[in-house]
Formats: sequence, structure tokens, C-alpha cells
Amino acid sequence: MRVGVLTGGGDCPGINAVIRGIVRKGVQEYGYELTGFRDGWRGPMEGDVMRLDIPAVRGTLPRGGTILGSSRADPFQHGEAAVRRVRENLAKHEVDALITIGGKNTLTVAARLFEEYGVPCVGVPKTIENDLPSTDYTFGFDTAVTIATEAIDRLHTTAESHMRVLVVEVMGRHTGWIAVRSGLAGGANVVLIPEQPFDLDQVCAWVTSRFRASYAPIVVVAEGAAPVGGDPMPGDDDESEPAGPVPPSGIGEWLAREIERRTGKEARTTVLGHVQRGGTPTAADRWLATRFGLHAIDCVRDGAFGRMVALRGTDIVRVPLAEAKAPLKTVDAGLYDEVGVFFG
Amino acid sequence: MRVGVLTGGGDCPGINAVIRGIVRKGVQEYGYELTGFRDGWRGPMEGDVMRLDIPAVRGTLPRGGTILGSSRADPFQHGEAAVRRVRENLAKHEVDALITIGGKNTLTVAARLFEEYGVPCVGVPKTIENDLPSTDYTFGFDTAVTIATEAIDRLHTTAESHMRVLVVEVMGRHTGWIAVRSGLAGGANVVLIPEQPFDLDQVCAWVTSRFRASYAPIVVVAEGAAPVGGDPMPGDDDESEPAGPVPPSGIGEWLAREIERRTGKEARTTVLGHVQRGGTPTAADRWLATRFGLHAIDCVRDGAFGRMVALRGTDIVRVPLAEAKAPLKTVDAGLYDEVGVFFG
Amino acid sequence: MRVGVLTGGGDCPGINAVIRGIVRKGVQEYGYELTGFRDGWRGPMEGDVMRLDIPAVRGTLPRGGTILGSSRADPFQHGEAAVRRVRENLAKHEVDALITIGGKNTLTVAARLFEEYGVPCVGVPKTIENDLPSTDYTFGFDTAVTIATEAIDRLHTTAESHMRVLVVEVMGRHTGWIAVRSGLAGGANVVLIPEQPFDLDQVCAWVTSRFRASYAPIVVVAEGAAPVGGDPMPGDDDESEPAGPVPPSGIGEWLAREIERRTGKEARTTVLGHVQRGGTPTAADRWLATRFGLHAIDCVRDGAFGRMVALRGTDIVRVPLAEAKAPLKTVDAGLYDEVGVFFG
Amino acid sequence: MRVGVLTGGGDCPGINAVIRGIVRKGVQEYGYELTGFRDGWRGPMEGDVMRLDIPAVRGTLPRGGTILGSSRADPFQHGEAAVRRVRENLAKHEVDALITIGGKNTLTVAARLFEEYGVPCVGVPKTIENDLPSTDYTFGFDTAVTIATEAIDRLHTTAESHMRVLVVEVMGRHTGWIAVRSGLAGGANVVLIPEQPFDLDQVCAWVTSRFRASYAPIVVVAEGAAPVGGDPMPGDDDESEPAGPVPPSGIGEWLAREIERRTGKEARTTVLGHVQRGGTPTAADRWLATRFGLHAIDCVRDGAFGRMVALRGTDIVRVPLAEAKAPLKTVDAGLYDEVGVFFG
Repeated sequence: MRVGVLTGGGDCPGINAVIRGIVRKGVQEYGYELTGFRDGWRGPMEGDVMRLDIPAVRGTLPRGGTILGSSRADPFQHGEAAVRRVRENLAKHEVDALITIGGKNTLTVAARLFEEYGVPCVGVPKTIENDLPSTDYTFGFDTAVTIATEAIDRLHTTAESHMRVLVVEVMGRHTGWIAVRSGLAGGANVVLIPEQPFDLDQVCAWVTSRFRASYAPIVVVAEGAAPVGGDPMPGDDDESEPAGPVPPSGIGEWLAREIERRTGKEARTTVLGHVQRGGTPTAADRWLATRFGLHAIDCVRDGAFGRMVALRGTDIVRVPLAEAKAPLKTVDAGLYDEVGVFFG
Repeated sequence: MRVGVLTGGGDCPGINAVIRGIVRKGVQEYGYELTGFRDGWRGPMEGDVMRLDIPAVRGTLPRGGTILGSSRADPFQHGEAAVRRVRENLAKHEVDALITIGGKNTLTVAARLFEEYGVPCVGVPKTIENDLPSTDYTFGFDTAVTIATEAIDRLHTTAESHMRVLVVEVMGRHTGWIAVRSGLAGGANVVLIPEQPFDLDQVCAWVTSRFRASYAPIVVVAEGAAPVGGDPMPGDDDESEPAGPVPPSGIGEWLAREIERRTGKEARTTVLGHVQRGGTPTAADRWLATRFGLHAIDCVRDGAFGRMVALRGTDIVRVPLAEAKAPLKTVDAGLYDEVGVFFG
Repeated sequence: MRVGVLTGGGDCPGINAVIRGIVRKGVQEYGYELTGFRDGWRGPMEGDVMRLDIPAVRGTLPRGGTILGSSRADPFQHGEAAVRRVRENLAKHEVDALITIGGKNTLTVAARLFEEYGVPCVGVPKTIENDLPSTDYTFGFDTAVTIATEAIDRLHTTAESHMRVLVVEVMGRHTGWIAVRSGLAGGANVVLIPEQPFDLDQVCAWVTSRFRASYAPIVVVAEGAAPVGGDPMPGDDDESEPAGPVPPSGIGEWLAREIERRTGKEARTTVLGHVQRGGTPTAADRWLATRFGLHAIDCVRDGAFGRMVALRGTDIVRVPLAEAKAPLKTVDAGLYDEVGVFFG
Repeated sequence: MRVGVLTGGGDCPGINAVIRGIVRKGVQEYGYELTGFRDGWRGPMEGDVMRLDIPAVRGTLPRGGTILGSSRADPFQHGEAAVRRVRENLAKHEVDALITIGGKNTLTVAARLFEEYGVPCVGVPKTIENDLPSTDYTFGFDTAVTIATEAIDRLHTTAESHMRVLVVEVMGRHTGWIAVRSGLAGGANVVLIPEQPFDLDQVCAWVTSRFRASYAPIVVVAEGAAPVGGDPMPGDDDESEPAGPVPPSGIGEWLAREIERRTGKEARTTVLGHVQRGGTPTAADRWLATRFGLHAIDCVRDGAFGRMVALRGTDIVRVPLAEAKAPLKTVDAGLYDEVGVFFG
């Protein structure tokens, strides 16, 4: 039995732990050979492979990134010939099953290959933003939240001197999971998320009330958050900029300046950026990622193709791979309200 | 409406986050007055109270320990008079509901007071060892696992020089949750837990095989683990020592010496001790603890007494408080086997 | 003997450790009474004091910020009357000596009060940017470098996927100490500092050469760095913005966009901001700050007024307080060249 | 020009940073070839070498341990033939200079080879315990202190519940540098070091007085500390144990039991062990180690053999390699007294 593995999409701490789990159990318990495809779907498209044996995964558990490389390549966007090349390369390397570790786009390719061509695929959900709907959590998310929370923790020192508004921009282009979690865990006073367009007047009211309690406000804003009415920079001449609601310097910087302008209080911005995606995964992410890997190779052994591993409570379960195509899981209004008790 | 709060049992990062959640929502949304009882059940027994208003919980979110103090006091062990004093003191302080944050012993008192005397109690489960059965997780556990994992991570440097066996003793007197989680997340080569008496010959075989792979073994042992046959120190004169399987210097130190004696390899021990119980909670523990607090005060509002909050997947649910009396949740053989792929 | 203490200027981890050192030794060994003046020189100007006894400093060692509050108030900027009020308030509170913890501006006030009015002042140098010339290091600097280095460490994960330029903006308005230290410790490929105007073509050449080595470049830039020729945003209409070389969204964001434009490579920015100033001090900063406090109170005991404590090697020495008025200590060309071996 | 490099003695975070500094500057600026000898002096004795080029040091800056391996091998202990083999192997591999990174023993070999045989050696001092006399600090020390301080920080949570004595055993067989630094930085109440035999009655008096202040004591003890009068376990039958003052289970465990026995207070022990030696070096250690490497290769370029790099203030200087043979640098009584203000 030979099993292929590929990793697609953005960096996410824990991918290597998945790969290690697959390889250790696949080789030791089932006697499989493992073949890595490089750089997501580019690997099968171009036949770029690497051997995945036990020495290859040694020492990778605590390392961020992916030893297989990644890309956003999508054979279906390159036409029929690209899809055929994927199938030919899988055949050429005698791959009997393919484990795909990725987010919505990467897994959707796997789902289509399974559905339309019968390619024996198994999926492992991966997104730092925690917005895949079929699983309670994805690995990488806890790490991102931890990093953002540590940053917010440090800002409280300045907040205690009650002089400045502190704005922290965190990841979350479409969903506010990192913002809500880190905002609550860090004791932020305002949390703004893409799911709920914000009212600048309300934000400024919270900011001002916070100063009256002799404490400066900490405002956490997801990068995809936007004010009510859409465009956060109505007066801007942004012809040369990419379309969409986020100003070129980021919503955090924009928000800080608007708050300054409206409240007369100085504001400072922290933009964490890719720091949230990198470095060693937390213990919780290593646990989840490793178990995903162990269960993915069990799917292969059981011939459970067209399936994806997922977390439900404390159990790893199998769900249809097609669920990866479902709409993103958003922060619902109930949870946002629950957190809202700490605003202002 | 006046609501009492008490915290019992051992230190556990996140207790203050529970209290803060209770107070913020109780005061701001429901207009309740909150009264803290000091040092667990000693507080109601002796009428020792403190005011719990919003300033009292400011800045406590990232702090370990409990601002209310704790103890292992149990009124039922002091006879009928002690139980009566608890009820009198609750009446004297006009407490209409009592939120009890604690482990099995502390919550069992609350369950009995509710069942036998109708005291309107709500429970919040708390144990760093994650062994309460009604909830997927308890806060504090992720922090303990994180600390243990960081220690194991650092030991890999020495392990790479392939000269010494490294034994790490972690918490877990009755259950191996911290050992299993941190052992897996830290990439340990052997994990020993109380649920599974270990065979020293097997441990030494794993240790020896690891050296053959040019790498020194890291052995994680829960403090309550014991060898097959029970007493780990058969030849010892331990008359003056407390009964039971753990030698006075701890199972870790004992194990290191036995491995040295049997394999001829030097062994070194790390004993983390209370370091695992202290300091700031992780972001995940703050999230869980805060939500437990918010839902506990909702129980009070709903008159849901004799209930305990619990985590199920991503939801906070209510279960009978009496469930706190159930046997401890242990690491089952299936999960231990799953992790066992990384042994040796 | 009664000793006043005040803290001025920006946040800096370790200030509380200085205060604690002063109080513990002052009270226990010398039997002094300590009086804190609130919010830097505003305290003596307005007579705003707080008691500084041993309970007041309990638990403050690991806490960032300052329990005394801070400000940038300068009595000499408020005319003769303000200076007189300072002296009157010191007399009113029977202060026999005043320990001033601060940066260049705060200490310059102390130096002038000592020189012009004979006020018995002792100075403790404080600057996160490490640019005070009389001392090898100042506390807070190691903490800032540590935080910046941890962020850079995490970015290497993304850099290994060799797709994007990663720009990190760190503190350093006038000097590049934090940039040079964290850039070297983090393994950055380019470090830009205020002392050395940078050539964008050179920066882009380093960036491009790095990509050829199959690795994405990490560029660390001090907030006060600027390109050769001065204004980094020549085409901008910045009438409404404060004068000076830094564009409103910061040099980091500007640099990322310029690199994108010139090299065709995507660039992402991390702006750490006040995160570098907050939170718990490192062990090294606590050691230095505590020793500064212990030696400052010894200066008082010895009547060594008009002096400032300073670090020389491993010794705490006394230098003239007037040295605080000297030009800032900059990163000299020799050290920058030493570090330059790692560029590109 | 071909330059050999070897690393001897115990693990110490930062060794790889030294090697990387040597290689980057040696190759890029001076065009040297670098040859690594494996496992300390075993490498030259047995001719075991590895190529040290720029790819070999990539990614090693944040990694603990040493890519060259280490040992405590000493050719002078193996007689004249072993020393001759070292010289023959250096000749065979055409090594024009040898950079030796190590502690007292490893460097003493280099000093003798230089003095007695004219081998062109350059030394880099390395000891986690900071006890080499010719340099203000050695790399690795800051990392060890940081790890110990973080552990002590976490114990304060338990100490606040004022129930138990907490004993922390840290490294330091001959000197108390780690104990003094981490004890002060962590706010310990008692620090015991090898340089000053301790009086158990005094320790118990400090412990007891601490409880009276409603706070439990934290006792930091260096592994080599011993009570006045020498043997800490006078009644023990320790025939089968190695000679010397430390009981088999360690001074920390012994001290905890003695304190319990004498004060009637429960005591708990944390033994950090090799955790202090491993993992990623702090930013400060990476800076120092890298600069040591850069200056060591400059020594080679300048023909400054028989020299050792050292830190003096903020400068890297050159001292005679023979200084490595001097007695260890101990914590002097003055500094211990300075710290003593925080005891009790």
C-alpha cells in the first residue's frame, strides 16, 4: 500500500504534526509506504514528490510550517489537462490513497477528485481561522489565539497608564474567531469582527466610557471587520488599490486614526500579521493535529475514502469530504452577545 | 438578588476568570449583588465573606490562584452543627444562591446541600487533572499540559546528544491526562499513567531501543503511576512514610534510578511539581473559565439549581450537580493505545 | 529620613522592580520612610503623593508599568512658579532626598533641580530604547528585544515557504538598538536603523538575493529609520500630518509597499507597537532594575546626591546626574557593520 | 585557510549561534573553509569531521544543543599517544587554526595544546553556570536563569494561598549564579548557594517568618548547596551512592523534608534539572554567542592564537586562553548580602 500526502493553503502551526502522525502509524503499524507531494496540488500536477519515511518526520512535531511545502494551486482552474496530469502522476507513483491536508479550497479539489473521478482521497481540515464548519476546532487556531492574547496581555500595562487607545489588528478576513477568543482571553474592551459591521459612534462611546473608569481601552479588530455602511475610507481616492473594504494600511491603522479624530485621544496600533501563523504550535494544537493524522491513516486502512476527519467533543470522527465545500462557520450573534458583556 | 461564590480544592489557573465572569454579568446585566465566601467551605462555615463587585475582579483575568482563597474544608466531616452553621451563615448574609467552584470533594458538598437541605447551589467543575466525568474539559488542564510540554520540549536538546535518559514527573495522582497529553505533545518516548501499571522490563526495552536510534529517551511519568505488582520500592524500609505506592522522593526519581540500575544508562529527573498549577492561565483556559462563569450566573437567573455547567463540544451545557459524585474520568485503554504508537 | 520617589516618561518593564528595591532596602535596612509622587513630575508639582511601604510593593516585581504612574510633565516648561511649587511640595512632605526614575527628559529636570536649587536628587536611568549614554544597559531594553525576537522567530515559518517579504517594525525613534539586537537574535536578513539612512535599491537587492536562496527575507526596521534623502514619501500630500520623515501609517507599512512595488514580491508587515513596552520584565531586566533600586537608596544613605546609578560591566556605579543631559547613545558604524555580515 | 571548530562539555543554549557566527563570517568575509570536529575532543582524537558550510548552519540560530555534538573527552587523560593523534588529525585535515568552544576542561586542553605544542587555538568560553572568571557573562546563563525564573513566577500563585513551603532546586554544582539571579528575579524568600553553607535553623526561621506575613515561602537552592557542617544526610546509609554532600534524591528534596520535619509545614519540591540546559536560547544569549563567534574568527584572521574571546561591559575582548585554567568565579559575599535584603 502506498499513500500520498499533500498540504495546501496558508501556513498553520501543526501541519507537520499531522504528517508525523500519518507517517509514524502508517509505517510502524500498517507497513505502508508514504509519498509526499510538494507544494499542495502543484505536487501531483507536476509529479514533484519526496519520500516520507520515519527519519523525514523526526523532530518536526514542534516546528511550524510544513515540510512538504504548500501552494494555492488548483488543478481545476487549469482545465481538464491539469486534472488528468494529477491522476496520471498519482498512478505513476503508484499511490493507492491520497491524504489532503488543507482549507476549504484545497479540500474542495480533493472532494471533486473523489466525486468526479473516484480518486481515493481522505481529508484533514486545516485553517488557522477556525472557520471550517464540520469540526469543532482546527489545529493552528489555538496557537494564533495564544499569540494574540499574549500581545493583548502586554498592552494592559500601557492601558493602566490611561493615556492612549490601543488597537490590535488580528487575523480573520471573513470570520472573527481569533478576534473573539483573544479579545475575551486578553480582557479587551471592544472586539470587532467581520460578521457584525461596527458603528464607529458606538466604538467611540465604549472608548470614552473606558477612560472614565481610569483605564485606557484595548480594541481588538479582525482584519476583515468593517464599519456599518461598508467602505471604511469613504473619502479616499483608492483607484490604484485593490477593491474591497480594507484600506491599504489595514483596518487597525484606519480605526486608530478615526478614534483619534473623533475622541481626541491618542491611539496606537499593533498589527500582528504573520506572527500569528508561525512558530511552534501550542500543546493543544499538537494534540489535535497528531490525532487528526492518526485517524486519517486509519481512514485509509478502512478504505473510508471521500471522508474527512473532524473533532466532535473529545472524539475524532469521520464526515463526508464534501462538507469542506459548505459555507464558512461564522461567529454567531449569540456568542458575540455573550462576549459583549465585557465591552466598554 | 444576592449570590454567594466560593472556591475550594487545589490551585487551578482560571478560577479568577470564572469569578470575573460571574461578577461582570451578574452585576452589569442582572443587577445582582455578589458575596464571596473565603477559603472554600470554611467561608460559609465561619461566616467569612468579602464583597465581590466589579473593582474586586479588575485585573484578575490573567492571574492564577483565587482571590477568594481556597481550602479543603468539608462541613459534612464536621458533623451536623457545621452544616447548620453553613445554612445559618448563608441566611445571615441573605444569599439567595450559591455558586461553588471546585473539584469532586467541593462539589459533592454542594450537591448534598442541595439534595438534603434544598440549598440553591450551582456548580462549576474545576480540576487541573481533567478527571471530572461530566465535562469534556476543565479549565487549568490546558495550562498544566502547556507547562509540562514546554519542559519536555527543552529536554529534547539534551536527548539529541544521546547520552542520558530523561525522566519527567508530571501531575496526575489518579489519572494520566496531563501525562498523556504533554507526553504526546512533547514527543516523549514513554508515557506512564496511573490507569495502566507499567512493566519495568518493557520501559527498559523502550529506553534501550531508543538509544539504538541515536537518540536518548524522554520518559513522562504521572506522579500516581506505579509498576505492575504495586509497590515500586519493594526493598524499602518505609515505616515512617505515608502508605501507598509512591516512594518519598517521588516516582520520577525512583524510576530514574531503576532505569540506571537496569540499563546502565545515566538518568536525570525533572519534577515540575506545583509549577504546573500556577501562573497565568492559557488563552484557552481563560475562554473556558470565563464562559463557565457567564453560564453559572445564567443558571442562577434561571433558577436552575442543583445544576453544574459543563463543556460539550463547543457548547456550555447544564448537567445535574450530583454528577460530580461519579467516579473519576480515566484515560481509557483505547486512547492510551492510540498514543502508544509513539513509544519506544 | 524620608525619601521621595517618582517615575517619568514612557512605559518600561522593570520600573516597579526599581521601586521595590528602593523600598525593601530603605525600610528594612535603613529605617527610612518612603513617599511616592504620582505621575512623574506632576506629583511634586501638585503635591500628589502616596505611601510607599512594604505592602505597597508586594507582588509588583513581575508587573510591567509603574505603580506610581507616569507623565512627561516638566516643571521647567511651566515657569518659575512650577519649579517653586515642586520645592514647596518636597518641603511640605518633608522629603530629605528624591529618587527620580526616568529617561533623558525626566532626569534632566532632576539634574537641574540639583544644580540650580540644591535639591538632593538621585537618578535611575530608564529607557526601553537603551540610548542613555552613561550606562551599559538600561532595564526594559532586554524585554523589548525579547518580545521583538520572539515575533521574528515566528515569522521564519512563513519565510521558509519562500513566498513573501516579511517586514517587522520595532521601536527606536532615534536609535536602532532594539532593531539591531532583535534583528541579529532573530536571524533577520536586513536591519534598518535611524543612525544609517538606507538605500532602497540596496534593500531590494538584499531581498532579491534572499529569494534566490529559496528563502523569503525578513526585514527589521526601527520606527525612526528613513531612506537616504530623507522623506520616505516624496509624492505624498501630507499637509495634515505631523511633520517629519515617518509616514502616517508607519515606516514598516511604507517599506513593505515600496518593496512590493520594486521587486514584484508580496510583502506583509508586522507592527509590534506598545506590545514591546508592556507586560512582565525578563529575568535580566528584573535583576538590573532591582540592583539599580538597591544602589539608588545606598546613594541616599551616603548623601551621594547629584548622582545617577549606572551599569558598568557587572558593577553598579555612580555617575554624575548631569550625564543624563548628554547626547543619546547611538549604534555606531562598527557594530552595525559587525551585524551586517548576516544581511542579504 | 582552513579552520577547525569543536564543542565540548555540557549542553548550553547558544553554542549553535557561535558556530553560525564563525561560519558566516569565516566563509563570506574571509573565504575560509570550516571543518567541524564531532563530539568535542573525541573528534580530533579520532579524526571524526563534518563539513561546516553555510547550508550546515542554516536555521541553527534558535536551536539549543550543538550540531557538532559534544563530549567530555580529554586527550591528555589518554596519554601521549592521544595527544599525538589530535595533532596528526589536525594536520591530516589541513587545519590551520582550531576554535574550541567549551568550559574549563575543554578550554584547558586547548590552552595546553597551544602552550606545549604550539597548536594555533582560539577559545570561546561556554558554561551555563556563568562561573568562568575571564568574562562578564557566558551565553546560556541568561537562558537558564530565565527558565528558572519562569518556574518561580508560577509558584507564587500557590505561595499566595499560604499553605506550603515551595522548594526549587536549580543548577549550580559549584557556584550559585543561577540560584542568586533567578531567586532575586523570581522574588524568592530564601536563596541557598554552594559558596555559603547554610544554617538549617536560619532557613527555618525565614520560612516561619514568611508564613506570619500570610504568604508561603519560596526557597531556591542550588544543587551544590550544603548545610553548615557538610554532609546533609548524616544518618544515611549511602554506601552504594557516589560520595559527596548531595543526597541521592537531591538537595531540594532533602531540604523540603527537613523543613517539614522542623517547622511542621508541608513542603513541595520542584527539580528543574536539564530543562534549564535545553531549548532555544534567549535573545540576549543569541546576541552574545553570535558576537563571540564573529570575534573568534577575527582572532583567527589576526593570528591571535592562544587567546580566548570574552565579554567586558559591552565589548568583546581577547584574553589569554590560559585564563580558562583559573579558579571558578564564585558569588562573592558582597553580592550575596546585597540579595539578602529580600530573604525572610
